[in-house]
Amino acid sequence: MDNFVFQNPTKIIFGKAMETRVGEEVSKYSKKILLHYGGGSIKKTGLYDRVISSLKAAGIEFIELPGVKPNPRLSLVREGIKICRENNIDFILAVGGGSVIDSAKAIALGVVYDGDVWDFYTGKASPKAALPIGTILTIPAAGSESSTGSVITNEDGWYKRSAGSTLLYPKFSILNPELAFTLPKYQVACGAADILAHLMERYFTNTQSVELIDRMIESTMKTVIKYVPMVLEDSNNYEAWAQVMWAGTLAHNNLLNTGRVGDWGSHDIEHEISGIYDVAHGAGLAVVFPAWMKYVYKHDPNRFVQFAVRVWNVEQDFFDPEKTILQGIQKLEEFFTSIGLPTRLEGLGITDDRLEEMADKGTDSDQKTLGNFVKLRKNDIYNILKLAQK
Amino acid sequence: MDNFVFQNPTKIIFGKAMETRVGEEVSKYSKKILLHYGGGSIKKTGLYDRVISSLKAAGIEFIELPGVKPNPRLSLVREGIKICRENNIDFILAVGGGSVIDSAKAIALGVVYDGDVWDFYTGKASPKAALPIGTILTIPAAGSESSTGSVITNEDGWYKRSAGSTLLYPKFSILNPELAFTLPKYQVACGAADILAHLMERYFTNTQSVELIDRMIESTMKTVIKYVPMVLEDSNNYEAWAQVMWAGTLAHNNLLNTGRVGDWGSHDIEHEISGIYDVAHGAGLAVVFPAWMKYVYKHDPNRFVQFAVRVWNVEQDFFDPEKTILQGIQKLEEFFTSIGLPTRLEGLGITDDRLEEMADKGTDSDQKTLGNFVKLRKNDIYNILKLAQK
Repeated sequence: MDNFVFQNPTKIIFGKAMETRVGEEVSKYSKKILLHYGGGSIKKTGLYDRVISSLKAAGIEFIELPGVKPNPRLSLVREGIKICRENNIDFILAVGGGSVIDSAKAIALGVVYDGDVWDFYTGKASPKAALPIGTILTIPAAGSESSTGSVITNEDGWYKRSAGSTLLYPKFSILNPELAFTLPKYQVACGAADILAHLMERYFTNTQSVELIDRMIESTMKTVIKYVPMVLEDSNNYEAWAQVMWAGTLAHNNLLNTGRVGDWGSHDIEHEISGIYDVAHGAGLAVVFPAWMKYVYKHDPNRFVQFAVRVWNVEQDFFDPEKTILQGIQKLEEFFTSIGLPTRLEGLGITDDRLEEMADKGTDSDQKTLGNFVKLRKNDIYNILKLAQK
Repeated sequence: MDNFVFQNPTKIIFGKAMETRVGEEVSKYSKKILLHYGGGSIKKTGLYDRVISSLKAAGIEFIELPGVKPNPRLSLVREGIKICRENNIDFILAVGGGSVIDSAKAIALGVVYDGDVWDFYTGKASPKAALPIGTILTIPAAGSESSTGSVITNEDGWYKRSAGSTLLYPKFSILNPELAFTLPKYQVACGAADILAHLMERYFTNTQSVELIDRMIESTMKTVIKYVPMVLEDSNNYEAWAQVMWAGTLAHNNLLNTGRVGDWGSHDIEHEISGIYDVAHGAGLAVVFPAWMKYVYKHDPNRFVQFAVRVWNVEQDFFDPEKTILQGIQKLEEFFTSIGLPTRLEGLGITDDRLEEMADKGTDSDQKTLGNFVKLRKNDIYNILKLAQK
């Protein structure tokens, strides 16, 4: 187990109708905020009205910035920074999923930084300050509601890059499973893949003696595997949604990487895919992860046997570990298929061959590697994408 | 799953030699502190010298208050409050186990309260403020290093009572598994029982649809069950200690009771025992818990079957759930015995019969109940103590 420092100060407010508390929570930080959200769905469901009414009741002034898209764009972030500066706004409330929250985090970084906010995403600068943010989560997926990360897409070259800082932990996040009832099934499935991916990125580690967190990750994966099909079957199943939503947060709030180094190669590869093709992140992950596993499992077969047996209940073949491993990977693929996700590039509608371009871009022309479990060079990424083709 | 609010802001600094960072951490809060600890063990191991040297290097003035005993006493708390007031001390550093930390928390409450600090432990007052505290943990057990609770014994009548408030979360806790290497085996075993008890108190709930946290609790229990015998076998096994120490903190940092109501009846019963007989809290719990289980399992046999199968790997008898349940309880008893703990009152050296007195005291003469899974009246507690006799 590695040494670590862990501190996650985000206040989680979980349960039915909790969004009505938002005004009270915001008022601890600010009287004038940016209200950031996506398309019209929060208006259709009535969430928008409840939020506005709670903010007004608490005497909070707000300026709205809607329009966040999946794979949130740098241009909108820049617009948000400008609005905050011109209006002396000192708090951002994100109402939506990971894209909205990530966009809010980027704005929070940019407002108090003299240079270009993209610097934080290229590694040119490290965050030294950020505006406080709060969130009302509408989809269990990205885990951004209690994480240090933000992923933004720069339309100028379609680079999708991430920034991270403990400054980006939201002050509070309101999680009401009821808000997920109206989600389209495909989005639910993509969210599930994202949650599983966050868990698998942490699970596949070279750090030894990490059993407690291994088991906690397995617990969270099993919860996702059991309850996501239930919410797809009955979108009003509050109890099942509650399990999925809390799992989505715990998957990415940094508890489950204490004492270990995660991988994150699959996420980086997926960012190259969704950067170019603008596919849903979760769908991209469902395609990349099985291919990644097939490419790397020989690096630590025991860990992959444990994954197959403990997470997927594969009956262990004690004489043929490889068989057990491949059955585990197959179960993962079957799960993705069962919830309506593709597991091959073709299923994402990607039929042209820009694999080398993606491998090249992801590694800055083979100047850097991706991942930690196995350090992947340009050629490895090309091979993984090839495996994802067939 | 119940609605909940969860926020645990304690900064965990985990790993080898981390106590050398204490001066730097303290200096974020104060330049003049109370240094609170127990007997001489931290001097024997050299920990005391390392702490002093780190505090001095950071220019921090300190006044020492040693002498905390197991089942920490109200009289020492009062002394600490007086010292802090007379010396304008605004931070308390606890170096030790749960008793030292609980004593520090009590002082932290008392310094800023006009009335008698015992008011917080009788329920006469609720904490409105507290001095900040930091901890260096020397034994995985009580979980107080990242909890909201404090348990103090009032020598005037030997009442052992608890207070709780989110104000009592330590600002930081330093967890170095190496510090546990020198612990006596019996203390290690008592600590293990305390950790398991914290997990079982949370596990046995009437709240439905709590599978994610059920599994996380099971993960933590399995970790304790596996690694505690390893540290008893080889007290210098860092990796095993690291698992036990992190488990001890996670068992009690309130994550594992999100969305559910725990029981806590066994803890309350044990407080009556150790209040009168001054036995080690963990040993008392090892005696109470199996008896409690035998008395209440019929209330929710399914949960007890799950406990037996998932935690203790009992082979399920699908046609005889009671057999499975009793095997699970037996495994728990065998575990306690294997690590050197008693499972009967006699093993605690309690051979006189003050059972009724304890049942009476614990329930304020049958005026209140203990526990939530099953609400226990005076007569129930008497029966449980009777079961703990034979």
